[in-house]
Amino acid sequence: MSLIVQKFGGSSVADAASIKRVAARIVETKQAGNDVVVVVSAMGDTTDELLELANEVTETPAPREMDMLLTAGERISMALVAMAIRSLGHDARSFTGSQAGMITDSQHGAARIVDVTPGRVKDALSEGAIAIVAGFQGFNRDSGDITTLGRGGSDTSAVALAAALDADVCEIFTDVDGIFTADPRSVPLAHKIDRITSEEMLELAANGAKVLYIRAVEFARRHGVTIHVRSSFNHNEGTIVYNPKEGVEVEEPIITGVATDLSQAKITVVGVPDVPGKAAEIFTTIANAGINIDMIVQNVSANESGTTDISFTLPQTEGEAALAALKADEKGIGFASVKYDDKIGKLSVVGAGMKTNSGVSAQLFTALFEAGINIEMISTSEIRISVVTRADTINTAVLAVHTAFGLDSDTEAIVHAGTGR
Amino acid sequence: MSLIVQKFGGSSVADAASIKRVAARIVETKQAGNDVVVVVSAMGDTTDELLELANEVTETPAPREMDMLLTAGERISMALVAMAIRSLGHDARSFTGSQAGMITDSQHGAARIVDVTPGRVKDALSEGAIAIVAGFQGFNRDSGDITTLGRGGSDTSAVALAAALDADVCEIFTDVDGIFTADPRSVPLAHKIDRITSEEMLELAANGAKVLYIRAVEFARRHGVTIHVRSSFNHNEGTIVYNPKEGVEVEEPIITGVATDLSQAKITVVGVPDVPGKAAEIFTTIANAGINIDMIVQNVSANESGTTDISFTLPQTEGEAALAALKADEKGIGFASVKYDDKIGKLSVVGAGMKTNSGVSAQLFTALFEAGINIEMISTSEIRISVVTRADTINTAVLAVHTAFGLDSDTEAIVHAGTGR
Repeated sequence: MSLIVQKFGGSSVADAASIKRVAARIVETKQAGNDVVVVVSAMGDTTDELLELANEVTETPAPREMDMLLTAGERISMALVAMAIRSLGHDARSFTGSQAGMITDSQHGAARIVDVTPGRVKDALSEGAIAIVAGFQGFNRDSGDITTLGRGGSDTSAVALAAALDADVCEIFTDVDGIFTADPRSVPLAHKIDRITSEEMLELAANGAKVLYIRAVEFARRHGVTIHVRSSFNHNEGTIVYNPKEGVEVEEPIITGVATDLSQAKITVVGVPDVPGKAAEIFTTIANAGINIDMIVQNVSANESGTTDISFTLPQTEGEAALAALKADEKGIGFASVKYDDKIGKLSVVGAGMKTNSGVSAQLFTALFEAGINIEMISTSEIRISVVTRADTINTAVLAVHTAFGLDSDTEAIVHAGTGR
Repeated sequence: MSLIVQKFGGSSVADAASIKRVAARIVETKQAGNDVVVVVSAMGDTTDELLELANEVTETPAPREMDMLLTAGERISMALVAMAIRSLGHDARSFTGSQAGMITDSQHGAARIVDVTPGRVKDALSEGAIAIVAGFQGFNRDSGDITTLGRGGSDTSAVALAAALDADVCEIFTDVDGIFTADPRSVPLAHKIDRITSEEMLELAANGAKVLYIRAVEFARRHGVTIHVRSSFNHNEGTIVYNPKEGVEVEEPIITGVATDLSQAKITVVGVPDVPGKAAEIFTTIANAGINIDMIVQNVSANESGTTDISFTLPQTEGEAALAALKADEKGIGFASVKYDDKIGKLSVVGAGMKTNSGVSAQLFTALFEAGINIEMISTSEIRISVVTRADTINTAVLAVHTAFGLDSDTEAIVHAGTGR
């Protein structure tokens, strides 16, 4: 007998009909002889509706109360899923984040899980019941207050529960068939990846792949949880995100997938005095404004005037704040001007096999050159190479790279309606 | 400094605008130098919408899950009220039934409060905050499960909190100005009652007056809580429901108010053998079916055939079940037939002064006789006389009785729009 954690997102429980369908699927898993713990998100648009209500009441909702408000969403969906399962003749009990022992720090709206004590979930399982747990929510033990985990919270709840319960697998149900070698909407010949390491998945997620949230993958890697990303619309095997055992040699593909990201912008600080410590000053200014930057390029040599240019990328949503912070320190740092460019695209190739295979960057740059794509910035990690190009060339680039690394499938991927998350 | 518990129902928090209005009212009370604890119901139609969802999912929702589902309603309204208060510059914290220490038995959907341990509410007050508590909900300490209190639950929550906190008064805000001597929609000259004992209020509520729920009044009487029923649309004094001190003589009005009830039906069991124990058999059958009956009349003497008729009243909603139960025991009890009549109306006059004043029934019967109303059944308590008449004569009856007991006001009562609860 296996213990399986299944997570269903908001679109899977959007209405009564979907909830009944999800319940039937859960019961199937139970009838196959497994213990089942289910994590659910709020129904479809519930969270947006609650946010809208809060905004009508006040422009600055108190974070503690916002969490109290939003956690009503999963309470509704989990109770309905439990009812639907019970009406199919199986025992089911719903648990709030607090009842399920999801203990977090006190940061409302973006709390981090500090411990999971799922005693009541275990009791339910040992009595033969299916446990339905509210995703996205937890509680702070010191204050007794309800918290929410922020973006991707339900995926994180599911993985954290799987870790605490020592589950055999954490199944994340979604509206696509799994993780693809590239986004099938841009690359029709992309194919589903059968198995991917959590390390690779992390790089893909961090660089634009949208199916799994980074936090959940990080948690899975840290706690050795195996994730199975699969479709709620069929019974096909999806993608297994696994943690390779230390010392066990496996043949890993050089390139597992290609991710693209159009949400970044580039800031270039022009005419920075070419003296030691200036780069540090700039990035201290940016860090003090609470902004995360991604790639950095400094021109190798100073020009005649004894100045240099420093470029970096950051999320477009943080562009305005970064520009304001730089302007405020303009005199102190002593640069000439700042340029902002949000027409960039980032392409990343990811593969654990890169560690032991050289020549991947050469192959990447050649493919891009042959496709007529100009590279503006480059960054690498042990298992990833990223390049920045013009945004309007990113589709040509990803198609060329996908082909060059031999990732093209024989047949076109089927993209489900509603694959927009 | 006083401690005031204020309860706002669903229509008072139906949308963002109403919630802001309620928040302003709460802040006024706080600024007047009081400690304030607020109990809220779910917004307007939320509960009905959640019930509808449950019905779409299954015809037989599990009671535990139904409570989990429905309690999302107050969670939403209380968080929004707390946000609205905070945006007015006052500290406010919302608490679920469980956080507020509303401990109940385990009867889902109709749980009874067994203890109230409002430690967190007290802490909030001592730190200068306004505490917002979810009405209608509690939790069972043995199972750790969430429960709901059933009909009138939020009024009961408010009174129970007022008792546990030893509050000076429990203000129940509603859409009418208070308790009236009769329903102003039927009796235009009805006037607001300034003060009424909880005992009288209990009789009025039990006999058709709809502003306060019986359970809340019972709780207030048992725990010595003073209730102030008042309008959320104006600042007028409403009706004080008080508990007279033992041994303190006060002059009490002979008749405080008149209530009518059109929700009852009459069942007559015809041809019951006139032998001892037959009435007991009939009412055992009814009780075993879980049906509450109200008034009973047995014909004083048997007719020539040695049989008699027994009539009783019960809620129309339980009529079908009662008839089925009687039919099933027809042979055992040995009656001839059963008649069902849902065209009856009940009129009750209530007044604590009845205890020490005779002649009230004579005055009542005279008034009804002069108005041409036929009386079918009569029942009395220490402070109430009820009569059953034809439903279509009840309006004539209540007008006549209201005048006969000198309750008519000089001016017509103003009935607010939306006085339909």
